[in-house]
Amino acid sequence: MRFQAPESLSEQIAQHLGQRIMTGDLQPGERIQELKVAGELNVSRGSVREALLILQRRHLVEIFPRRGAVVSRLTPALVNSLYDIYIDLLCMLGRKVMERWSGPELAGVVSQARELQAVTTALNASGTDAAEQVIDAGFGVMRYAYTLVENPFLEETLENFRPAISRTYYVALENFREELTETGRFFTHVADAATSGNVEKVESAIRQFGEHQRHQVLRILREEASA
Amino acid sequence: MRFQAPESLSEQIAQHLGQRIMTGDLQPGERIQELKVAGELNVSRGSVREALLILQRRHLVEIFPRRGAVVSRLTPALVNSLYDIYIDLLCMLGRKVMERWSGPELAGVVSQARELQAVTTALNASGTDAAEQVIDAGFGVMRYAYTLVENPFLEETLENFRPAISRTYYVALENFREELTETGRFFTHVADAATSGNVEKVESAIRQFGEHQRHQVLRILREEASA
Repeated sequence: MRFQAPESLSEQIAQHLGQRIMTGDLQPGERIQELKVAGELNVSRGSVREALLILQRRHLVEIFPRRGAVVSRLTPALVNSLYDIYIDLLCMLGRKVMERWSGPELAGVVSQARELQAVTTALNASGTDAAEQVIDAGFGVMRYAYTLVENPFLEETLENFRPAISRTYYVALENFREELTETGRFFTHVADAATSGNVEKVESAIRQFGEHQRHQVLRILREEASA
Repeated sequence: MRFQAPESLSEQIAQHLGQRIMTGDLQPGERIQELKVAGELNVSRGSVREALLILQRRHLVEIFPRRGAVVSRLTPALVNSLYDIYIDLLCMLGRKVMERWSGPELAGVVSQARELQAVTTALNASGTDAAEQVIDAGFGVMRYAYTLVENPFLEETLENFRPAISRTYYVALENFREELTETGRFFTHVADAATSGNVEKVESAIRQFGEHQRHQVLRILREEASA
Protein backbone atom coordinates (compact mmCIF):
# COMPACT_ATOMS: atom_id res chain seq x y z
CA MET A 1 0.00 0.00 0.00
CA ARG A 2 1.39 3.36 -0.97
CA PHE A 3 -1.31 5.86 -0.05
CA GLN A 4 -1.46 5.50 3.70
CA ALA A 5 -1.09 9.15 4.64
CA PRO A 6 -4.38 10.56 5.89
CA GLU A 7 -6.21 12.30 3.08
CA SER A 8 -6.19 16.07 3.26
CA LEU A 9 -9.53 17.81 3.71
CA SER A 10 -9.52 19.03 0.12
CA GLU A 11 -8.80 15.48 -1.10
CA GLN A 12 -11.76 14.19 0.93
CA ILE A 13 -14.03 16.86 -0.55
CA ALA A 14 -12.69 16.03 -4.04
CA GLN A 15 -13.49 12.35 -3.54
CA HIS A 16 -16.98 13.14 -2.29
CA LEU A 17 -17.76 15.42 -5.24
CA GLY A 18 -15.99 13.05 -7.64
CA GLN A 19 -18.20 10.17 -6.56
CA ARG A 20 -21.29 12.30 -7.16
CA ILE A 21 -20.05 13.18 -10.65
CA MET A 22 -19.07 9.60 -11.54
CA THR A 23 -22.44 8.19 -10.55
CA GLY A 24 -24.33 10.94 -12.37
CA ASP A 25 -25.76 12.57 -9.24
CA LEU A 26 -24.06 15.75 -10.43
CA GLN A 27 -24.93 16.07 -14.10
CA PRO A 28 -22.63 17.07 -17.00
CA GLY A 29 -22.73 20.82 -17.49
CA GLU A 30 -23.96 21.44 -13.92
CA ARG A 31 -22.29 24.32 -12.09
CA ILE A 32 -20.61 23.53 -8.80
CA GLN A 33 -20.98 26.51 -6.49
CA GLU A 34 -18.18 26.90 -4.00
CA LEU A 35 -20.27 28.64 -1.37
CA LYS A 36 -23.09 26.13 -1.57
CA VAL A 37 -20.75 23.14 -1.27
CA ALA A 38 -18.86 24.83 1.57
CA GLY A 39 -22.16 25.34 3.42
CA GLU A 40 -23.43 21.81 2.81
CA LEU A 41 -20.20 20.16 3.96
CA ASN A 42 -19.44 22.74 6.66
CA VAL A 43 -15.95 23.42 5.31
CA SER A 44 -14.14 26.57 4.20
CA ARG A 45 -14.55 27.96 0.73
CA GLY A 46 -10.78 27.66 0.25
CA SER A 47 -10.91 23.89 0.82
CA VAL A 48 -13.66 23.59 -1.78
CA ARG A 49 -11.59 25.61 -4.27
CA GLU A 50 -8.65 23.26 -3.70
CA ALA A 51 -10.95 20.25 -4.16
CA LEU A 52 -12.14 21.68 -7.48
CA LEU A 53 -8.53 22.02 -8.67
CA ILE A 54 -8.00 18.36 -7.80
CA LEU A 55 -11.14 17.42 -9.76
CA GLN A 56 -9.94 19.50 -12.71
CA ARG A 57 -6.74 17.47 -12.68
CA ARG A 58 -8.90 14.34 -12.74
CA HIS A 59 -10.80 15.61 -15.76
CA LEU A 60 -14.17 15.67 -13.97
CA VAL A 61 -14.70 19.44 -13.86
CA GLU A 62 -13.66 22.37 -15.98
CA ILE A 63 -12.86 25.68 -14.36
CA PHE A 64 -13.65 28.88 -16.23
CA PRO A 65 -12.57 32.38 -15.25
CA ARG A 66 -15.51 34.15 -13.59
CA ARG A 67 -17.99 31.29 -14.30
CA GLY A 68 -16.30 28.89 -11.90
CA ALA A 69 -16.41 25.09 -11.94
CA VAL A 70 -18.69 23.08 -14.19
CA VAL A 71 -19.06 19.28 -14.36
CA SER A 72 -17.30 18.31 -17.58
CA ARG A 73 -19.48 17.08 -20.41
CA LEU A 74 -19.48 13.58 -21.83
CA THR A 75 -19.74 14.04 -25.58
CA PRO A 76 -18.71 11.45 -28.18
CA ALA A 77 -15.74 13.65 -29.12
CA LEU A 78 -14.56 13.81 -25.51
CA VAL A 79 -15.06 10.07 -24.98
CA ASN A 80 -12.98 9.44 -28.11
CA SER A 81 -10.22 11.78 -26.93
CA LEU A 82 -10.25 10.15 -23.51
CA TYR A 83 -10.06 6.58 -24.80
CA ASP A 84 -7.41 7.53 -27.38
CA ILE A 85 -4.96 8.61 -24.72
CA TYR A 86 -6.04 6.13 -22.06
CA ILE A 87 -5.60 3.09 -24.32
CA ASP A 88 -2.15 4.34 -25.39
CA LEU A 89 -1.09 4.86 -21.78
CA LEU A 90 -2.36 1.40 -20.78
CA CYS A 91 -0.39 -0.12 -23.67
CA MET A 92 2.66 1.74 -22.41
CA LEU A 93 2.07 0.29 -18.94
CA GLY A 94 1.74 -3.23 -20.38
CA ARG A 95 4.85 -2.78 -22.54
CA LYS A 96 6.93 -1.52 -19.61
CA VAL A 97 5.83 -4.44 -17.43
CA MET A 98 6.92 -6.83 -20.17
CA GLU A 99 10.23 -5.01 -20.76
CA ARG A 100 11.20 -5.11 -17.12
CA TRP A 101 9.83 -8.42 -15.96
CA SER A 102 9.65 -11.93 -17.25
CA GLY A 103 8.27 -15.36 -16.30
CA PRO A 104 8.38 -15.80 -12.54
CA GLU A 105 8.14 -12.10 -11.61
CA LEU A 106 5.05 -11.76 -13.76
CA ALA A 107 3.29 -14.46 -11.76
CA GLY A 108 1.79 -11.90 -9.34
CA VAL A 109 0.07 -9.76 -11.93
CA VAL A 110 -0.97 -12.81 -13.94
CA SER A 111 -2.55 -14.51 -10.94
CA GLN A 112 -4.36 -11.28 -10.04
CA ALA A 113 -5.73 -11.10 -13.55
CA ARG A 114 -6.86 -14.73 -13.38
CA GLU A 115 -8.51 -14.22 -10.00
CA LEU A 116 -10.39 -11.35 -11.49
CA GLN A 117 -11.68 -13.62 -14.17
CA ALA A 118 -13.01 -15.99 -11.49
CA VAL A 119 -14.55 -13.03 -9.65
CA THR A 120 -16.39 -11.78 -12.73
CA THR A 121 -17.76 -15.25 -13.40
CA ALA A 122 -19.03 -15.55 -9.80
CA LEU A 123 -20.50 -12.04 -9.84
CA ASN A 124 -22.11 -12.67 -13.16
CA ALA A 125 -23.95 -15.58 -11.58
CA SER A 126 -24.93 -13.66 -8.44
CA GLY A 127 -25.90 -10.37 -10.05
CA THR A 128 -26.10 -7.40 -7.67
CA ASP A 129 -23.54 -4.71 -7.08
CA ALA A 130 -21.13 -6.41 -9.42
CA ALA A 131 -20.11 -3.35 -11.44
CA GLU A 132 -18.30 -1.48 -8.75
CA GLN A 133 -16.44 -4.59 -7.58
CA VAL A 134 -15.27 -5.48 -11.08
CA ILE A 135 -14.18 -1.91 -11.80
CA ASP A 136 -12.22 -1.86 -8.53
CA ALA A 137 -10.66 -5.27 -9.21
CA GLY A 138 -9.60 -4.14 -12.69
CA PHE A 139 -7.93 -1.03 -11.31
CA GLY A 140 -6.34 -3.27 -8.68
CA VAL A 141 -4.48 -5.12 -11.44
CA MET A 142 -3.31 -1.76 -12.78
CA ARG A 143 -2.05 -0.71 -9.37
CA TYR A 144 -0.10 -3.93 -9.15
CA ALA A 145 1.44 -3.19 -12.54
CA TYR A 146 2.52 0.26 -11.29
CA THR A 147 4.66 -1.33 -8.61
CA LEU A 148 6.42 -3.38 -11.30
CA VAL A 149 7.04 -0.43 -13.62
CA GLU A 150 8.02 2.21 -11.04
CA ASN A 151 7.25 5.20 -13.23
CA PRO A 152 5.55 7.77 -10.97
CA PHE A 153 4.61 9.99 -13.92
CA LEU A 154 2.87 7.19 -15.80
CA GLU A 155 1.13 6.11 -12.59
CA GLU A 156 -0.02 9.63 -11.79
CA THR A 157 -1.24 10.29 -15.32
CA LEU A 158 -3.20 7.04 -15.47
CA GLU A 159 -4.61 7.62 -11.97
CA ASN A 160 -5.73 11.09 -12.98
CA PHE A 161 -7.69 9.55 -15.87
CA ARG A 162 -9.20 6.81 -13.71
CA PRO A 163 -12.19 8.80 -12.41
CA ALA A 164 -13.15 9.96 -15.92
CA ILE A 165 -12.86 6.39 -17.20
CA SER A 166 -14.88 5.06 -14.25
CA ARG A 167 -17.49 7.62 -15.09
CA THR A 168 -17.84 6.22 -18.59
CA TYR A 169 -18.14 2.71 -17.11
CA TYR A 170 -21.02 3.92 -14.95
CA VAL A 171 -22.68 5.29 -18.06
CA ALA A 172 -22.47 1.80 -19.55
CA LEU A 173 -23.76 0.31 -16.31
CA GLU A 174 -27.13 -0.83 -17.59
CA ASN A 175 -25.38 -3.10 -20.02
CA PHE A 176 -22.99 -4.31 -17.40
CA ARG A 177 -24.29 -7.87 -17.03
CA GLU A 178 -23.04 -8.79 -20.49
CA GLU A 179 -19.96 -6.65 -19.98
CA LEU A 180 -18.85 -8.74 -17.01
CA THR A 181 -18.23 -11.73 -19.24
CA GLU A 182 -16.31 -9.53 -21.67
CA THR A 183 -14.20 -8.07 -18.85
CA GLY A 184 -13.40 -11.54 -17.53
CA ARG A 185 -12.39 -12.64 -21.02
CA PHE A 186 -10.11 -9.62 -21.37
CA PHE A 187 -8.21 -10.41 -18.20
CA THR A 188 -7.74 -14.02 -19.34
CA HIS A 189 -6.31 -12.75 -22.64
CA VAL A 190 -3.91 -10.39 -20.90
CA ALA A 191 -2.81 -13.08 -18.45
CA ASP A 192 -2.22 -15.54 -21.30
CA ALA A 193 -0.32 -12.97 -23.36
CA ALA A 194 1.84 -11.95 -20.39
CA THR A 195 2.63 -15.59 -19.60
CA SER A 196 3.68 -16.19 -23.19
CA GLY A 197 6.08 -13.24 -22.92
CA ASN A 198 4.68 -11.72 -26.11
CA VAL A 199 4.59 -7.90 -25.87
CA GLU A 200 2.57 -7.47 -29.06
CA LYS A 201 -0.10 -9.85 -27.74
CA VAL A 202 -0.34 -7.92 -24.47
CA GLU A 203 -0.72 -4.63 -26.35
CA SER A 204 -3.26 -6.07 -28.73
CA ALA A 205 -5.35 -7.53 -25.86
CA ILE A 206 -5.36 -4.16 -24.09
CA ARG A 207 -6.21 -2.30 -27.26
CA GLN A 208 -9.00 -4.69 -28.17
CA PHE A 209 -10.65 -4.39 -24.78
CA GLY A 210 -10.23 -0.61 -24.70
CA GLU A 211 -11.80 -0.28 -28.14
CA HIS A 212 -14.66 -2.53 -27.05
CA GLN A 213 -15.34 -0.33 -24.00
CA ARG A 214 -15.14 2.83 -26.10
CA HIS A 215 -17.62 1.36 -28.54
CA GLN A 216 -20.06 0.45 -25.74
CA VAL A 217 -19.89 3.89 -24.15
CA LEU A 218 -20.36 5.66 -27.50
CA ARG A 219 -23.35 3.42 -28.28
CA ILE A 220 -25.06 4.34 -25.01
CA LEU A 221 -24.38 8.06 -25.50
CA ARG A 222 -25.97 7.79 -28.94
CA GLU A 223 -28.98 5.98 -27.50
CA GLU A 224 -29.36 8.62 -24.78
CA ALA A 225 -29.12 11.42 -27.32
CA SER A 226 -31.84 9.92 -29.51
CA ALA A 227 -34.11 8.99 -26.56
CA MET B 1 -4.77 31.39 -29.67
CA ARG B 2 -6.77 29.44 -27.13
CA PHE B 3 -5.67 30.77 -23.74
CA GLN B 4 -6.89 34.34 -23.90
CA ALA B 5 -8.78 34.44 -20.60
CA PRO B 6 -6.91 36.50 -18.00
CA GLU B 7 -4.85 34.22 -15.78
CA SER B 8 -6.24 33.68 -12.31
CA LEU B 9 -4.17 34.92 -9.38
CA SER B 10 -3.20 31.37 -8.40
CA GLU B 11 -2.11 30.68 -11.99
CA GLN B 12 0.07 33.81 -11.93
CA ILE B 13 1.66 32.72 -8.67
CA ALA B 14 2.17 29.22 -10.08
CA GLN B 15 3.95 30.64 -13.14
CA HIS B 16 6.14 32.85 -10.99
CA LEU B 17 7.18 29.98 -8.71
CA GLY B 18 7.42 27.60 -11.68
CA GLN B 19 9.89 29.91 -13.42
CA ARG B 20 12.02 30.03 -10.27
CA ILE B 21 12.03 26.22 -10.11
CA MET B 22 12.80 25.76 -13.81
CA THR B 23 15.76 28.10 -13.75
CA GLY B 24 17.12 26.54 -10.56
CA ASP B 25 16.56 29.61 -8.38
CA LEU B 26 14.48 27.33 -6.16
CA GLN B 27 16.54 24.18 -5.66
CA PRO B 28 15.39 20.54 -5.78
CA GLY B 29 14.35 19.43 -2.31
CA GLU B 30 13.79 23.00 -1.10
CA ARG B 31 10.65 23.56 0.97
CA ILE B 32 8.20 26.16 -0.29
CA GLN B 33 6.58 27.84 2.68
CA GLU B 34 3.08 29.09 2.05
CA LEU B 35 3.23 31.90 4.59
CA LYS B 36 6.59 33.17 3.37
CA VAL B 37 5.51 33.22 -0.28
CA ALA B 38 2.20 34.85 0.64
CA GLY B 39 4.10 37.59 2.49
CA GLU B 40 6.64 38.13 -0.30
CA LEU B 41 4.01 38.40 -3.02
CA ASN B 42 1.42 40.12 -0.85
CA VAL B 43 -1.28 37.54 -1.65
CA SER B 44 -3.46 35.31 0.50
CA ARG B 45 -2.24 31.99 1.81
CA GLY B 46 -5.17 30.31 0.03
CA SER B 47 -3.97 31.58 -3.35
CA VAL B 48 -0.49 30.20 -2.65
CA ARG B 49 -1.99 26.81 -1.72
CA GLU B 50 -3.89 26.77 -5.01
CA ALA B 51 -0.72 27.70 -6.89
CA LEU B 52 1.10 24.80 -5.24
CA LEU B 53 -1.64 22.39 -6.38
CA ILE B 54 -1.15 23.69 -9.93
CA LEU B 55 2.61 23.15 -9.64
CA GLN B 56 2.02 19.65 -8.31
CA ARG B 57 -0.01 18.94 -11.44
CA ARG B 58 2.93 20.23 -13.48
CA HIS B 59 5.31 17.87 -11.70
CA LEU B 60 7.45 20.66 -10.24
CA VAL B 61 6.56 20.24 -6.57
CA GLU B 62 5.50 17.38 -4.37
CA ILE B 63 3.03 17.97 -1.56
CA PHE B 64 3.35 15.92 1.60
CA PRO B 65 0.83 15.78 4.45
CA ARG B 66 2.06 18.00 7.29
CA ARG B 67 5.44 18.74 5.60
CA GLY B 68 3.90 20.82 2.84
CA ALA B 69 5.30 21.52 -0.62
CA VAL B 70 8.85 20.63 -1.67
CA VAL B 71 10.53 21.31 -5.03
CA SER B 72 10.63 17.92 -6.76
CA ARG B 73 14.03 16.31 -7.14
CA LEU B 74 15.79 15.67 -10.42
CA THR B 75 17.32 12.22 -10.06
CA PRO B 76 18.35 9.97 -12.96
CA ALA B 77 15.43 7.66 -12.13
CA LEU B 78 12.96 10.56 -12.30
CA VAL B 79 14.47 11.91 -15.52
CA ASN B 80 14.14 8.45 -17.04
CA SER B 81 10.51 8.13 -15.92
CA LEU B 82 9.75 11.58 -17.26
CA TYR B 83 11.35 11.00 -20.67
CA ASP B 84 9.76 7.53 -20.94
CA ILE B 85 6.24 8.93 -20.79
CA TYR B 86 6.99 12.22 -22.56
CA ILE B 87 8.55 10.56 -25.60
CA ASP B 88 5.60 8.16 -25.85
CA LEU B 89 3.11 11.02 -25.63
CA LEU B 90 5.00 13.02 -28.28
CA CYS B 91 4.96 9.97 -30.56
CA MET B 92 1.23 9.72 -30.00
CA LEU B 93 0.88 13.39 -30.96
CA GLY B 94 2.93 12.84 -34.12
CA ARG B 95 0.96 9.70 -35.02
CA LYS B 96 -2.38 11.44 -34.54
CA VAL B 97 -1.29 14.37 -36.70
CA MET B 98 -0.32 11.93 -39.45
CA GLU B 99 -3.54 9.90 -39.10
CA ARG B 100 -5.76 12.94 -39.42
CA TRP B 101 -3.90 15.10 -41.88
CA SER B 102 -2.03 14.66 -45.09
CA GLY B 103 -0.02 16.63 -47.66
CA PRO B 104 -1.47 20.14 -47.96
CA GLU B 105 -2.90 20.36 -44.42
CA LEU B 106 0.46 19.41 -42.99
CA ALA B 107 2.10 22.36 -44.69
CA GLY B 108 1.55 24.62 -41.66
CA VAL B 109 3.30 22.44 -39.14
CA VAL B 110 6.02 21.54 -41.62
CA SER B 111 6.79 25.16 -42.43
CA GLN B 112 6.87 26.01 -38.72
CA ALA B 113 9.36 23.21 -38.16
CA ARG B 114 11.50 24.46 -41.05
CA GLU B 115 11.39 28.03 -39.78
CA LEU B 116 12.60 26.74 -36.46
CA GLN B 117 15.54 25.17 -38.19
CA ALA B 118 16.42 28.56 -39.71
CA VAL B 119 16.01 30.20 -36.30
CA THR B 120 18.37 27.76 -34.59
CA THR B 121 20.99 28.32 -37.28
CA ALA B 122 20.77 32.09 -36.90
CA LEU B 123 20.83 31.89 -33.10
CA ASN B 124 23.74 29.51 -33.20
CA ALA B 125 25.67 32.17 -35.08
CA SER B 126 24.61 35.03 -32.79
CA GLY B 127 24.95 33.26 -29.45
CA THR B 128 23.17 34.93 -26.56
CA ASP B 129 19.80 34.11 -25.06
CA ALA B 130 19.24 31.43 -27.66
CA ALA B 131 18.13 28.64 -25.33
CA GLU B 132 14.86 30.14 -24.20
CA GLN B 133 13.89 31.16 -27.73
CA VAL B 134 14.58 27.71 -29.16
CA ILE B 135 12.69 26.00 -26.33
CA ASP B 136 9.73 28.32 -26.92
CA ALA B 137 9.83 27.81 -30.68
CA GLY B 138 9.91 24.03 -30.21
CA PHE B 139 6.88 24.12 -27.94
CA GLY B 140 5.24 26.41 -30.53
CA VAL B 141 5.38 23.58 -33.07
CA MET B 142 3.75 21.31 -30.48
CA ARG B 143 0.97 23.81 -29.87
CA TYR B 144 0.32 23.95 -33.59
CA ALA B 145 0.11 20.16 -33.64
CA TYR B 146 -2.50 20.28 -30.84
CA THR B 147 -4.83 22.29 -33.03
CA LEU B 148 -4.57 19.60 -35.72
CA VAL B 149 -5.20 16.71 -33.33
CA GLU B 150 -7.97 18.24 -31.19
CA ASN B 151 -7.49 15.92 -28.24
CA PRO B 152 -7.81 18.11 -25.12
CA PHE B 153 -6.61 15.30 -22.83
CA LEU B 154 -3.43 14.70 -24.80
CA GLU B 155 -2.82 18.45 -24.98
CA GLU B 156 -3.38 18.92 -21.25
CA THR B 157 -1.19 15.97 -20.31
CA LEU B 158 1.66 17.13 -22.55
CA GLU B 159 1.31 20.72 -21.33
CA ASN B 160 1.46 19.52 -17.72
CA PHE B 161 4.79 17.83 -18.49
CA ARG B 162 6.18 20.86 -20.34
CA PRO B 163 7.54 22.72 -17.27
CA ALA B 164 9.32 19.61 -15.98
CA ILE B 165 10.82 19.01 -19.43
CA SER B 166 11.84 22.67 -19.73
CA ARG B 167 13.52 22.30 -16.38
CA THR B 168 15.68 19.47 -17.69
CA TYR B 169 16.57 21.62 -20.72
CA TYR B 170 17.75 24.37 -18.40
CA VAL B 171 19.91 21.80 -16.63
CA ALA B 172 21.52 21.05 -20.00
CA LEU B 173 21.88 24.75 -20.73
CA GLU B 174 25.65 24.96 -20.49
CA ASN B 175 25.88 22.52 -23.36
CA PHE B 176 23.24 24.34 -25.30
CA ARG B 177 25.44 25.80 -28.03
CA GLU B 178 26.06 22.39 -29.53
CA GLU B 179 22.49 21.38 -28.75
CA LEU B 180 21.10 24.11 -30.98
CA THR B 181 22.47 22.41 -34.08
CA GLU B 182 21.04 19.10 -32.91
CA THR B 183 17.63 20.68 -32.28
CA GLY B 184 17.62 22.27 -35.73
CA ARG B 185 18.49 18.93 -37.28
CA PHE B 186 15.63 17.24 -35.41
CA PHE B 187 13.06 19.66 -36.75
CA THR B 188 14.35 19.12 -40.28
CA HIS B 189 13.98 15.36 -39.82
CA VAL B 190 10.43 15.68 -38.52
CA ALA B 191 9.46 18.07 -41.31
CA ASP B 192 10.92 15.71 -43.93
CA ALA B 193 9.23 12.67 -42.40
CA ALA B 194 5.88 14.46 -42.18
CA THR B 195 6.13 15.60 -45.79
CA SER B 196 6.86 12.06 -46.92
CA GLY B 197 3.69 10.91 -45.12
CA ASN B 198 5.61 8.19 -43.31
CA VAL B 199 4.28 7.71 -39.75
CA GLU B 200 7.12 5.39 -38.72
CA LYS B 201 9.69 7.97 -39.80
CA VAL B 202 7.94 10.70 -37.78
CA GLU B 203 7.86 8.47 -34.70
CA SER B 204 11.45 7.44 -35.14
CA ALA B 205 12.64 11.07 -35.54
CA ILE B 206 10.77 12.06 -32.36
CA ARG B 207 12.11 9.07 -30.45
CA GLN B 208 15.67 9.66 -31.59
CA PHE B 209 15.64 13.31 -30.53
CA GLY B 210 13.95 12.50 -27.21
CA GLU B 211 16.53 9.84 -26.44
CA HIS B 212 19.32 12.25 -27.35
CA GLN B 213 17.92 14.87 -24.92
CA ARG B 214 17.49 12.27 -22.20
CA HIS B 215 21.06 11.17 -22.67
CA GLN B 216 22.37 14.77 -22.43
CA VAL B 217 20.42 15.51 -19.27
CA LEU B 218 21.51 12.28 -17.59
CA ARG B 219 25.13 13.00 -18.51
CA ILE B 220 24.99 16.42 -16.86
CA LEU B 221 23.32 15.03 -13.73
CA ARG B 222 26.13 12.47 -13.52
CA GLU B 223 28.75 15.20 -13.93
CA GLU B 224 27.08 17.33 -11.27
CA ALA B 225 26.94 14.36 -8.88
CA SER B 226 30.63 13.60 -9.31
CA ALA B 227 31.72 17.27 -9.15
